[in-house]
Amino acid sequence: MNEYTPSLGAGLLHDRLTVVDGLIVSDFGPEIFREMRKGGITAANCTCCIWENFTETMRNIMRWKAWFRDHSDLILQVRTTADIRRAKAEGKTGIILGWQNVSGMEDQIGYLSLFKELGVGIIQMAYNTQNLVATGCYEGHDGGLSEFGHEVVAEMNRLGILCDLSHVGSNSSRDIILASRQPVAYSHCLPAGLKAHPRNKSDEELRFIIDHGGFVGVTMFTPFLARGTDATVDDYVEAIDYVINICGEDRVGYGTDFTQGHDQRFFDWITHDKGYARRLTRFGTIRNPAGMDTIADTGGLTAAMERRGWPAARIEKVMGENWVALLREVWGA
Amino acid sequence: MNEYTPSLGAGLLHDRLTVVDGLIVSDFGPEIFREMRKGGITAANCTCCIWENFTETMRNIMRWKAWFRDHSDLILQVRTTADIRRAKAEGKTGIILGWQNVSGMEDQIGYLSLFKELGVGIIQMAYNTQNLVATGCYEGHDGGLSEFGHEVVAEMNRLGILCDLSHVGSNSSRDIILASRQPVAYSHCLPAGLKAHPRNKSDEELRFIIDHGGFVGVTMFTPFLARGTDATVDDYVEAIDYVINICGEDRVGYGTDFTQGHDQRFFDWITHDKGYARRLTRFGTIRNPAGMDTIADTGGLTAAMERRGWPAARIEKVMGENWVALLREVWGA
Repeated sequence: MNEYTPSLGAGLLHDRLTVVDGLIVSDFGPEIFREMRKGGITAANCTCCIWENFTETMRNIMRWKAWFRDHSDLILQVRTTADIRRAKAEGKTGIILGWQNVSGMEDQIGYLSLFKELGVGIIQMAYNTQNLVATGCYEGHDGGLSEFGHEVVAEMNRLGILCDLSHVGSNSSRDIILASRQPVAYSHCLPAGLKAHPRNKSDEELRFIIDHGGFVGVTMFTPFLARGTDATVDDYVEAIDYVINICGEDRVGYGTDFTQGHDQRFFDWITHDKGYARRLTRFGTIRNPAGMDTIADTGGLTAAMERRGWPAARIEKVMGENWVALLREVWGA
Repeated sequence: MNEYTPSLGAGLLHDRLTVVDGLIVSDFGPEIFREMRKGGITAANCTCCIWENFTETMRNIMRWKAWFRDHSDLILQVRTTADIRRAKAEGKTGIILGWQNVSGMEDQIGYLSLFKELGVGIIQMAYNTQNLVATGCYEGHDGGLSEFGHEVVAEMNRLGILCDLSHVGSNSSRDIILASRQPVAYSHCLPAGLKAHPRNKSDEELRFIIDHGGFVGVTMFTPFLARGTDATVDDYVEAIDYVINICGEDRVGYGTDFTQGHDQRFFDWITHDKGYARRLTRFGTIRNPAGMDTIADTGGLTAAMERRGWPAARIEKVMGENWVALLREVWGA
């Protein structure tokens, strides 16, 4: 038995947990849905918009609706936290439709209510660069939340859509944290205290979002981890621990950013502005932390938390219960 | 004969001039085209995109193409300055298709070459608020030209499309003036030295664009003039004189911003972000300077310049020749 194989005990704990992954952006379809079941994932924020416009995002959602019909043995759609409880009870994975950019709404605030009704529960306010609402973390200058962005935040608050700030720039994030009447989240980020990187958040930024009722989901994307592609699931738990030391254990979750099944074309698409313009970054080799290689290995994260000596109550919270509590606040159910 | 009726001599001068209006955003159609002929306008930058997206802008251009066919006795399409000379020779008004916002290209840089081929020769980089490229002059914060915006400027330079900065914010304007390899313009602005207003440009801003090879078209929109709705065409010429004192007489033109034929609905549309979101400004009563009430009165501007004692050579330049020289530099023909 290698060091990343969960012990029998850990396996049992993981099986009992409500497991919520704050961000998955894999090549969705039945193969990934089966992986989610193997990984014991109760619910996940699944990206259906990065650079897409209105029509393209609607097509992505159309495809999800077909999957909900055709693979109802594996997945169900999550609109409330009761759906997450139901997914757990029925042994399925609940799918939260989420966006990593506001490109899907184009310039129409009114579209947001359509998307909410179709099940979009989490929207990131910018993906790496400037849009009509905010500015992303790879942009040289960040003028903060635009005045149109203030209107968008207000409408998302009204509808109950979580504002995600993971790829958002520092000034825009601060403005959104202050503007939102509901808690907001970094759904998938890592601490700059462990590695300086445009995508990572400083201790001050982590403290600021928590001090304003917000939430931090910790990601495991190895280019943003200190040990890079040498990182293991234990390094991932160390990073979560770092964040908990700043944020406490009640407003922290995990969000893997699993890109499983995608090829180079996908990585070229996400690392160019609008999917085709100038290159924003180069990730190098894409490799998940050893022990968390695939979605099916999610139990390995619980095992690593146990190895680190975390009490079961903390594992329960960070593996999912904190996410459920946050979403209940924002969604109202 | 009232003070705004051109003298016989002035009328003769106006008739000889190549008259270029840097910005008209009227309710276009045969009635306006006949007004343009009465006003002796040789060419005008006619807005075909403010808040419209790609499809809506293409429809506007489609409508223009029908007008070019159906009203070829009144108008012709301008793609080069030779077309402006031809319009003068044939007694028609040359139409330069122009945008007041980049919304028409959505997020596709490649669309710009299609629009250039269809005749779009001037594009304003932002209309009052933040877009993917830049930030407008009514926005609280202006983060400057976005990095995507740098790519857009480079492509406009390559294609030969004039960058217009009239409604663009101060930081974005500065960045674009510095980024562009070709001269850029405020096609229709007024000096803040005569009235403080978010749309007006400071002496420093006027100097900066000229010092970098740029151009200033002076507008007459009365809400931005010191005397407001009491302003006359003579106040308009005084404002042009103010700008010439800063910029010299070789890089200054006029750009009326004639909104002729539009109703309240249009003004509500342009004064709300994206055409429908929060209100950005209230103009109050819309009234052109006395003596420049309609497009047909454009000869009154030449007359006012003569009344002010301008030499004919300066009038020729400011009424159109300076615009032609600028467009030749940018368009390459």
